[in-house]
Formats: sequence, structure tokens, C-alpha cells
Amino acid sequence: MKALLPSFESIFSIDCVIFGFDRGELKILLIERNEEPFKDWLALPGYLVAQDESIDDAASRILHELTGLKDIFMEQFHAFGDVNRHPQGRVITVAYFAMLRLNGAKELKPLTSFAKKAFWHPVNNLPALAFDHSEIFEKALQKIKRKITYQPIAFELLPEKFTLTQLQTLYEAVLNRKLDKRNFRKKMLNYGILKELDEKQKGVSYRAAKLYKFDKRKYAKLFKNELSF
Amino acid sequence: MKALLPSFESIFSIDCVIFGFDRGELKILLIERNEEPFKDWLALPGYLVAQDESIDDAASRILHELTGLKDIFMEQFHAFGDVNRHPQGRVITVAYFAMLRLNGAKELKPLTSFAKKAFWHPVNNLPALAFDHSEIFEKALQKIKRKITYQPIAFELLPEKFTLTQLQTLYEAVLNRKLDKRNFRKKMLNYGILKELDEKQKGVSYRAAKLYKFDKRKYAKLFKNELSF
Repeated sequence: MKALLPSFESIFSIDCVIFGFDRGELKILLIERNEEPFKDWLALPGYLVAQDESIDDAASRILHELTGLKDIFMEQFHAFGDVNRHPQGRVITVAYFAMLRLNGAKELKPLTSFAKKAFWHPVNNLPALAFDHSEIFEKALQKIKRKITYQPIAFELLPEKFTLTQLQTLYEAVLNRKLDKRNFRKKMLNYGILKELDEKQKGVSYRAAKLYKFDKRKYAKLFKNELSF
Repeated sequence: MKALLPSFESIFSIDCVIFGFDRGELKILLIERNEEPFKDWLALPGYLVAQDESIDDAASRILHELTGLKDIFMEQFHAFGDVNRHPQGRVITVAYFAMLRLNGAKELKPLTSFAKKAFWHPVNNLPALAFDHSEIFEKALQKIKRKITYQPIAFELLPEKFTLTQLQTLYEAVLNRKLDKRNFRKKMLNYGILKELDEKQKGVSYRAAKLYKFDKRKYAKLFKNELSF
């Protein structure tokens, strides 16, 4: 067993992977860094955890300071602790993620000069990110791909009332592949989790599609116990 | 934004929640601590992460040093980072878990005097644990309760060939409640993931029950995509 305390000191950080679904496109929240190392690089919003704050509090504070976003429910998903992941020393980072419904623009405004700016970037064609942030992003993306097949997260990203096309577009954006339209609709309707509304899309120039809501009770039940006894 | 590096230094630790299933009983691996604080208390196997090792490597090393167990596949599940969780200073811990099939005894032998001994304890009637280890344990238990309903982990805990009673006992132990026998069997057989063998239990004094294996391919498929398109 190795010797005690001082030689174990490290720095803790938080990194936030915030997904947003914006009119058919899956996006990710990035900052442009203003500081070395990786000055001018794109990175996930992330910073160091202070001594006097819990990691959950730190995650909220950091996201707010770097992007202006507040009251976002984030879930912790993985700690990244490779020895050389940070060029300035041993920094272990705890990553959080969240999924947001974006209705066009949300105001993004860093409260600190640490970030030059914050903005949404499509997950497709993402450039290389600072540190191991590309790896952190990939792990989060894998997580939501799995999650969308067995937990009711899809609907957090859609407006309350949506068309089947919008629903399919969301699944296609997250899974990053085309799905067969007939098959998708049949399956989705068979799950019994959608409520057909007596309402159609408004303000579209093409033939208006039917709107759906989801039946929260049934949806939660479907996903609660796959093997329910 | 707060000032830079030194004021952010913390200590990192790893804690291991190792579940074992032993003849119908769900158990957890504990150590008796030999050091202050919490000398003589029961705790999860856990220690500090060194500067020169990744957190995954640290987890394997720590489990080995404190219990003698080697080559256990552990999965990281949560970081615990409340400000006052450790009485000696700011220590953030990353918790790992694993599930093992115990065939009676496995040799447990700490390689370090940090642990007086290591042993399996039934998860029912667990005493208070050191630090926030009771909370860490509870979070891991909730995790495997959920997991056992939608991922193929149940079978990692059973012998290769098992009876339906053994399978039910495992589910009852993890979920901590009695299940209806007829209903359980019907559902399990309906999933199509069990292969009935042309073999019965040996060496039992009561009427020998049929043995089953699980069909790994079908099992994996069942759980791979709940909403498969």
C-alpha cells in the first residue's frame, strides 16, 4: 500500500456534455477557450471544482459561468481519469450530460473571460476538441443512443405536440441513420405510448400532419420494468 | 470565475461495491478497517488514487490490495463529491461495482495492514458503514435492481446450468421481494431466452428439477434494442 495523503493530491474538474435538438438536428454545446492550453480551441464547457462546493453544485455553476445557461438538470455519467489526460498535471474530470429541447436560439453568454464564446454545434462534422473532450463527447453520445431505445428521453427533446415525422427525425438524428418510415410508425404506434390528437400541424405549406402527444403514464410503464413480474 | 490551480487540490479515492450471489443469498464485500478515522468500522474496499495510475488501474489495484481478489471486471458507476463526505479533508471518490458468482468461499486476504480483514456480508441487515459508504452501497444496489430488469446480468451470477428455482431466488434476492412462482416461470419461458436441457439436478434429496442454460444470442438480442427498428 502506498504512502498517505500529500502524494495523492490531484485537481478535479467537471465537463458538461449538453445535447440539444433543434428542428431535426442534434447539436452539442461548445465553448471557444480563451486560455492556454488549447487557447482558441473548441471544448466542452468545463472547469475546476472548488474546495467548498459539491460536484453537483460545481457542475451547475460551471455550466452557468461558461454559457449563461441556468437550471439545467444534468446527470453525472462518467469520470475520466487517465494519467496524462491534461497537459498541466493530474486532472480527473467528472462528466455530466443533459438533453435539451431547443426552440431556435437560446441566449448563450459566458459570464467569464475563460470562454470567448459559447454556441451550439451540430454533432455531425464535429472538429477535434481540446484535451480528451472528443472521447468524452463520444461516450456521452453512445450513452444517449442506448438510452433512447429503453428510456423515455426522446420526448424531452420534442415539443409537447409533435408529428410522427418529427419523432422519427429525432431518432434518426440520435442514432445517426435512416429508419424505414412504415416500420418506424408501425412499431411506435404498437407500443401504445402515443396519443393521437384531434389536431393538425399549423402554418405549414404542405399537407398538414396529425399531431401526437405521448401518454406519460404508459410510456413510463413500458420502460419501467422490461422484465416485470 | 474562481482563481486558478492550487486552491482546487483534492484527494481522489476509489470505492468498490462488489456483489456476490452465494447459494440464494446476495452478499457484499466489506473490509474491517485498521486505521483512523473509522478504525474497526466496516467499509467498502476503498483507498486513494496515486498520481501515476489511471482510475481504472487504481480500482483494480485497490481491490486486490484490500481483499486479495484479482482480475475482477468492475464498472464505474458514480462519483461522490459532497464537500464534507470525508472527515480528514476534501476527498472525492469514484465508485465501481461488479457482480460475482460465489461458489461457496473465495479466499479473501488483504495484502496490506490497512484492512484488518475482508469478508462477504449479506446485503440484508447490513450495519452502518464508514464515511458515506452506506449511501454508495444503496446507490449501487438501486443500480443492479434496475439493471437486472433490462440487461443480461442475472446470468453472470448463476452457475452455467441452473434450475428455474435458482433463477427466481436470484431475482428475489436482488429485488428483495417474493415473486409469484407461476407468473415468474411463465414470463421467463416466454422471453425465449432459456434453453431447456436434457438433464436434471444431481445430488439432491428432493425431486430433481430440470436444468436450464441461457441462450446467449437470444438474451443479448432481447436486451439490445428495446425499441428496435
